[in-house]
Amino acid sequence: MDGRAQRGERTRKAVAAEAAAIASVHGLAGMTLAKVATELGVSKSSIQAAYGTKEELQLAAVGAATDVFLTHVIVPALAAPEGLPRLVALSESWLAYIEQLVFPGGCFMGATLSEFDSRPGVVRDALAGARGAWLGILEQQAAIARAAGDLPAEPSAALVAFEVDALLAAANMSRNLSDDIAPLDTARTLIALRLGTAKPAARMKRATRPKTTAS
Amino acid sequence: MDGRAQRGERTRKAVAAEAAAIASVHGLAGMTLAKVATELGVSKSSIQAAYGTKEELQLAAVGAATDVFLTHVIVPALAAPEGLPRLVALSESWLAYIEQLVFPGGCFMGATLSEFDSRPGVVRDALAGARGAWLGILEQQAAIARAAGDLPAEPSAALVAFEVDALLAAANMSRNLSDDIAPLDTARTLIALRLGTAKPAARMKRATRPKTTAS
Repeated sequence: MDGRAQRGERTRKAVAAEAAAIASVHGLAGMTLAKVATELGVSKSSIQAAYGTKEELQLAAVGAATDVFLTHVIVPALAAPEGLPRLVALSESWLAYIEQLVFPGGCFMGATLSEFDSRPGVVRDALAGARGAWLGILEQQAAIARAAGDLPAEPSAALVAFEVDALLAAANMSRNLSDDIAPLDTARTLIALRLGTAKPAARMKRATRPKTTAS
Repeated sequence: MDGRAQRGERTRKAVAAEAAAIASVHGLAGMTLAKVATELGVSKSSIQAAYGTKEELQLAAVGAATDVFLTHVIVPALAAPEGLPRLVALSESWLAYIEQLVFPGGCFMGATLSEFDSRPGVVRDALAGARGAWLGILEQQAAIARAAGDLPAEPSAALVAFEVDALLAAANMSRNLSDDIAPLDTARTLIALRLGTAKPAARMKRATRPKTTAS
């Protein structure tokens, strides 16, 4: 690549990343070329030079958001062993990604999936593909956890994945509505109950109390 | 009210209901006065006469959608006794409301909450209020069920409400993305597991088999 092509590629990446950030607040339909241009401090025509149509830019935003999700949620969880520990690590890195507001509007997928789920087309397909991949990762780890005897046989791995994702998505929405991170803990507690990883704090306290009294 | 005022009121109601239907597919930002006018076969100026600003129409759409939700989800469930039966009835009427596509885009709240959850203002306040009322109804019934000993002490009633709502919302999104009603059954199964109302079909079958063999 010569210098000009490299600059062009950097511009396209910066535009796609900004489009994803704006879409997390305003949706992919509300993400206009004008808004992206203003945020980046460039002309609208330079955005149009990078992406010819709004749909192209919407698809680029989905791609950029997927890269962010991989970096912030999937990659950190790879440090945990497969199965139940990886499933917990994926939930935790997801909650951290929301708590840190990696995207200004919380979860990019949460903001855009509901927007496009009733509008068939290439943008919906891209979003559905990304969601399917995420649910697939959760299901795979749940299946490994079940095979290892770390999760009960019921519900199925697919249902565990559905539930973990549902709780995380609801926490994202509650957090956005309330500007309060308490819903993230609600999701954490309910996920721990489903995965059987909840610490029985109350029971432990009761078990240790007699010892203290005796000493 | 004289005839003219009554006609005006009917027009306002029809406009608000159409606005809610369009918003369930296109979002409250994508719901334009022009789209509402086209769907109702009236002029854009007659829509403007009914609602002066887009924000007024957005708020009217939230109100109309809340009425539909009350009619299709809350009222049918009132036939069930309070507590666990009412909680199950609320989930079932919600799933029926989604299966029947009462709104063309599935759940009105699902389509609009994610759209507005990062945009402070009167529309977000109205949506958050409606969501809070729904969660409050679920929590109240969960609390009654716990007091009656029909639900375990943990998780709390608020957490049960959060989980039921999260599973229903995820089912709505999955159904919209796939044009398949199977996700509604997924939510039904997971809610039954949380509420302890799941029928142990496999175990019952195993229990009856020896009898059949013996006879």
